[in-house]
Amino acid sequence: MSDGIVTSTYSTGHVIVRSDLAPDADAVARLATQGVATVHEAQGRRGLLGTQVSARQEGAMIAGRAVTVSSHPGDNIMIHAAVEQCRPGDVLVVATTSESTDGMFGDLLAVSLRAHGVIGLVTGAGVRDLADLRKMRFPVWSHAVNAAGTVKASPGSVNVPVVVAGTLVNPGDVVVADDDGVVIVPRTEAAAVADAAQARIDNEADKRERLAAGELGLDIYGLRATLEKLGVRYVDAPALEGAGNA
Amino acid sequence: MSDGIVTSTYSTGHVIVRSDLAPDADAVARLATQGVATVHEAQGRRGLLGTQVSARQEGAMIAGRAVTVSSHPGDNIMIHAAVEQCRPGDVLVVATTSESTDGMFGDLLAVSLRAHGVIGLVTGAGVRDLADLRKMRFPVWSHAVNAAGTVKASPGSVNVPVVVAGTLVNPGDVVVADDDGVVIVPRTEAAAVADAAQARIDNEADKRERLAAGELGLDIYGLRATLEKLGVRYVDAPALEGAGNA
Amino acid sequence: MSDGIVTSTYSTGHVIVRSDLAPDADAVARLATQGVATVHEAQGRRGLLGTQVSARQEGAMIAGRAVTVSSHPGDNIMIHAAVEQCRPGDVLVVATTSESTDGMFGDLLAVSLRAHGVIGLVTGAGVRDLADLRKMRFPVWSHAVNAAGTVKASPGSVNVPVVVAGTLVNPGDVVVADDDGVVIVPRTEAAAVADAAQARIDNEADKRERLAAGELGLDIYGLRATLEKLGVRYVDAPALEGAGNA
Amino acid sequence: MSDGIVTSTYSTGHVIVRSDLAPDADAVARLATQGVATVHEAQGRRGLLGTQVSARQEGAMIAGRAVTVSSHPGDNIMIHAAVEQCRPGDVLVVATTSESTDGMFGDLLAVSLRAHGVIGLVTGAGVRDLADLRKMRFPVWSHAVNAAGTVKASPGSVNVPVVVAGTLVNPGDVVVADDDGVVIVPRTEAAAVADAAQARIDNEADKRERLAAGELGLDIYGLRATLEKLGVRYVDAPALEGAGNA
Amino acid sequence: MSDGIVTSTYSTGHVIVRSDLAPDADAVARLATQGVATVHEAQGRRGLLGTQVSARQEGAMIAGRAVTVSSHPGDNIMIHAAVEQCRPGDVLVVATTSESTDGMFGDLLAVSLRAHGVIGLVTGAGVRDLADLRKMRFPVWSHAVNAAGTVKASPGSVNVPVVVAGTLVNPGDVVVADDDGVVIVPRTEAAAVADAAQARIDNEADKRERLAAGELGLDIYGLRATLEKLGVRYVDAPALEGAGNA
Amino acid sequence: MSDGIVTSTYSTGHVIVRSDLAPDADAVARLATQGVATVHEAQGRRGLLGTQVSARQEGAMIAGRAVTVSSHPGDNIMIHAAVEQCRPGDVLVVATTSESTDGMFGDLLAVSLRAHGVIGLVTGAGVRDLADLRKMRFPVWSHAVNAAGTVKASPGSVNVPVVVAGTLVNPGDVVVADDDGVVIVPRTEAAAVADAAQARIDNEADKRERLAAGELGLDIYGLRATLEKLGVRYVDAPALEGAGNA
Repeated sequence: MSDGIVTSTYSTGHVIVRSDLAPDADAVARLATQGVATVHEAQGRRGLLGTQVSARQEGAMIAGRAVTVSSHPGDNIMIHAAVEQCRPGDVLVVATTSESTDGMFGDLLAVSLRAHGVIGLVTGAGVRDLADLRKMRFPVWSHAVNAAGTVKASPGSVNVPVVVAGTLVNPGDVVVADDDGVVIVPRTEAAAVADAAQARIDNEADKRERLAAGELGLDIYGLRATLEKLGVRYVDAPALEGAGNA
Repeated sequence: MSDGIVTSTYSTGHVIVRSDLAPDADAVARLATQGVATVHEAQGRRGLLGTQVSARQEGAMIAGRAVTVSSHPGDNIMIHAAVEQCRPGDVLVVATTSESTDGMFGDLLAVSLRAHGVIGLVTGAGVRDLADLRKMRFPVWSHAVNAAGTVKASPGSVNVPVVVAGTLVNPGDVVVADDDGVVIVPRTEAAAVADAAQARIDNEADKRERLAAGELGLDIYGLRATLEKLGVRYVDAPALEGAGNA
Repeated sequence: MSDGIVTSTYSTGHVIVRSDLAPDADAVARLATQGVATVHEAQGRRGLLGTQVSARQEGAMIAGRAVTVSSHPGDNIMIHAAVEQCRPGDVLVVATTSESTDGMFGDLLAVSLRAHGVIGLVTGAGVRDLADLRKMRFPVWSHAVNAAGTVKASPGSVNVPVVVAGTLVNPGDVVVADDDGVVIVPRTEAAAVADAAQARIDNEADKRERLAAGELGLDIYGLRATLEKLGVRYVDAPALEGAGNA
Repeated sequence: MSDGIVTSTYSTGHVIVRSDLAPDADAVARLATQGVATVHEAQGRRGLLGTQVSARQEGAMIAGRAVTVSSHPGDNIMIHAAVEQCRPGDVLVVATTSESTDGMFGDLLAVSLRAHGVIGLVTGAGVRDLADLRKMRFPVWSHAVNAAGTVKASPGSVNVPVVVAGTLVNPGDVVVADDDGVVIVPRTEAAAVADAAQARIDNEADKRERLAAGELGLDIYGLRATLEKLGVRYVDAPALEGAGNA
Repeated sequence: MSDGIVTSTYSTGHVIVRSDLAPDADAVARLATQGVATVHEAQGRRGLLGTQVSARQEGAMIAGRAVTVSSHPGDNIMIHAAVEQCRPGDVLVVATTSESTDGMFGDLLAVSLRAHGVIGLVTGAGVRDLADLRKMRFPVWSHAVNAAGTVKASPGSVNVPVVVAGTLVNPGDVVVADDDGVVIVPRTEAAAVADAAQARIDNEADKRERLAAGELGLDIYGLRATLEKLGVRYVDAPALEGAGNA
Repeated sequence: MSDGIVTSTYSTGHVIVRSDLAPDADAVARLATQGVATVHEAQGRRGLLGTQVSARQEGAMIAGRAVTVSSHPGDNIMIHAAVEQCRPGDVLVVATTSESTDGMFGDLLAVSLRAHGVIGLVTGAGVRDLADLRKMRFPVWSHAVNAAGTVKASPGSVNVPVVVAGTLVNPGDVVVADDDGVVIVPRTEAAAVADAAQARIDNEADKRERLAAGELGLDIYGLRATLEKLGVRYVDAPALEGAGNA
């Protein structure tokens, strides 16, 4: 039973957690098409990673189950350990125990992850071999691009809660990522959030059509009354005596 | 009559100013092809926005009349209010009253602006729905990309002077933007600046040809004399005794 | 003879050094295909420029002899002076004597450099005319994109040691640059580094194939023993009683 | 007559404006004791400089008439020109036409300004000789501390509108500065803002007393109803079975 | 029972949690004298807040029970709500749901907190009234100093898990803060960490004495063998022929 | 013999260089009283460290011989190795081979350095135990304050050329540091720079007196002619019709 206190059985040591915890597959599939901005809005504006973690390619849009890695900075042994815990459709989420921009992830690891069906990587540290990653169309979201590689020497954990760019990610959560960034949807809320996001999209479809036809948001959203209540006044710019005379 | 003191009739409240003030249309058309770097140079190196506001797509190049928005951070009601004040060829310029990276502008507003002929957006805050904006080829220049959306609740103003990325923008000024950033040309100076920019371009055409033929800038610009006057000496690197011996 | 103390004959004045010092041509050709991350690793993780200097286009990959410029901030006269010292295959490396983000380099200089066979530019300051540079496929790596141009008035030096983004660059060193950033290979070490890089690439080819086939890095690199020695334990996630019950 | 468009008679050249424009002296005296946070609040949350401009000493608190300088970066000739336009009680406000962290202001200029009664300096660039400035108790607010000095060679203007850290400063405005930063009060609003600030202070005195006595802001401000309306619920943390058992 | 998954009963709404959860009082008292660097080391280098949150005064050193606040940016109503949940010796920890540098905390709230025995504040946002806070010796650690105040209008939570500067803080944890920054000690580990920290301090006392007597760390820590194993060689600098001859 | 190419006998491995190379003692003593800004100016505006390295105490002012350390990030074994190479009056200069903000230096190392007569530390990384360092009045200049400590496991070098904050430091150079930052004076130029700095100080003494008496820099430096030549015009602000009428 949860007590509202964040805690972990594993806090006293480094562990690799084998876990079948997974979000609803249909919900994940829907979230993959809804986009980060809509999903973030739909779940009450929670779960967005800080803007320092950004897309390193254009046009990728994914959603998948989070397999998490808590890694020593400058060391990628735990990423290798994590591959074995991944299954098709997963997204690897890599945090470091102190701030780092080292290039912890490159093309060899991407090849390995892809072989196991992983569809993308999110990290608060750096990536390298960017040209190769783009060529093989393996999407990454990172804090940095950095050729500086890493060693394989320090212990860490796989599938424990981690914080990336200010946001908590639990193993089994849904990672949604596109050109706008990354948002995390709690595992047990995936279906509800996908529903709420779809409702927003349906609602927006009508609005988009009306806006495209030239109707004003002022009228569609009923904002004229709001503006008046807020005391915003309409005034005319003073007439000018001459073209060059302001 | 102006007294050299910046001031505003509207300083004591929030206003939406209906304004026909516009720069010379022919000048705007010319500025749209001249590029930010040349225009900035041509008007005496004034009016450039800070580099934190950057292009969020590649290859867009625009110039248009500024419709300005002064907005509460995290609120986009005044952007909706501004749409009504826009006309074809305008560029929307959005400032916030305190620093913000929230995604105040997304694809729905882009659809609305485009329906009214607006050709681009410049903001000191953030944009979202970036994939959609790129797909619909609506160019934006912003400080951030951020999925975090906004509310529609706080008063602000439209078509008042604003400061974006350290630069003052008056409604009716010309906004010129491309891959290099954004520069503001004062409304009444548009034609003169376009003329000066054209003179630079004409002058550069000849130089480009000579440089492409291998002639040196040292000779074309007469810089050898400058170097000598500055005391810069030519020396030969010492001969080395062997390949591995430095 | 060197004494381990960095020094320069030219420290008391501004000089343009005519130099035939060049790295091994074959080594440069090989480095151009090996990539920054591999080369950095191959030379013992030295020589990487700070990540603030980044690629301003996608997919470019070059290696060439460094012609260096030490320039007053906001002034590009010494870049013009440097063109004459360049020969086909060179890369121009521009440092400023104090921090600057001014756009010291634009399309005219690119035209001039290209006419002399220069294949790219690296600078700790800014570049402009980015759209043109991309169109003509002249690759640049810089700290900033900035339309703010420069004057031609202050003395500086060509082909002296400079520091760019925290890294020392000697004239005649090899500059290797791609989407991951920029790494400097000392002139006399070019062949040895290219050999070491090739050994890494050969070694990686086999690993890439095995990883692509689904084999784990844990097994290929023998990391299971390391994990055990580091005290990393495997545990199973607790079974959950119900879908919505975590 | 003002038309709501920011403009300047002097836009086409560099000028030193001799100006007697000054805010109400009594209002300035009152603002000097009210503090930046209160004054900012009292004038509707306008006029605050960005937080990058910070106090370079502890405990200084000033208010004075702004004499403004628009300066070329890396050049302080216009600061010298501005001294002559200052009178006792003034605050010098220095902006640069492009971003700069150079140390444009040091102890000699402080001696000069003090001799003319100037009580402090605010700049979007850098200061140097900080130890001396602190010893002579001449307070400064700046973006940077930087030993890199400047030349005296480029034209600029005195007593024209400038933008510092994102905020417009008109000559004759009131500059209020303390450990919290810097806020600008428009010249003609000085008395009204000082009145509003005093009202806030009077109002706060009673509240401070009640809060110091242990009364809650929840009750003093009537926020319990707000919380209820916002749907914030009170819950008890679950009992724990034992000290080490969470 | 915990399952290693971070979760919260309260995730579906805003709550104020009344909680008696507290760390061991004796452990807190000891942590208050041990310092952030030692405590961080003693608990396995976990729990340190990012360096962006720094001390806003010199010489303060505290430890206390965390009462946490999750607040809308630019709104401090939940800080008022939190006061009621505080008791003597507590430290208030304020996070915002999106990045903010607004001055959410000033002297009135400090007066209120002090009346309830709170000994300090830690926030990922900003503070204001800094001169007053220093005068009343109420220590604060924050991301920013910013006069920009806040409203009291948006819901949030008290005593729920929050992330500040990349680190998770649970209500009831120990907050240790000094001139080096802030470190969080999990509630149930307070005594063990204080013990481990004391062991380090005892161990260091002897070392400090030996180092002060001129003995080398190389010998005290047995590092000469390490250096030799790492292949670090001792060499003599070449003799120089003359004083000015390098 | 130097060839203008920066090079090092030791580039192929890690070394600890025993060196008697030292700047002129009398020159160092004079530089210690002249201040960073003056010394920087006196040596032609070279050698200033980037402003990211700043004083972590107020009022310290030192000059001493540089003993340099090239260290792996997050590791301070080489600082221990360096202590043995220090002698009274030295300043330790610590660079890391890739960017780091870890707290590599704390009070124990300060105790050790002081026992060997070292008078201060400069680092491009972080320091910790700041309260202790201030209490024992051991001055430090660093990029960060960070409680995150380091290990003692990776090889590096002592007394080799290093780059700190963009500036090259050779062992034996003079480090001058105060509240304005840090400047490096090449070993063989110490006396000449101290002479030039003294000349500036003597020259400034007279100017300071005249400025303190109210004389203008415009007249003392003969700048009125410069302003006229630059086309700066004097104009009068327009008279205003009424107090509230601008």
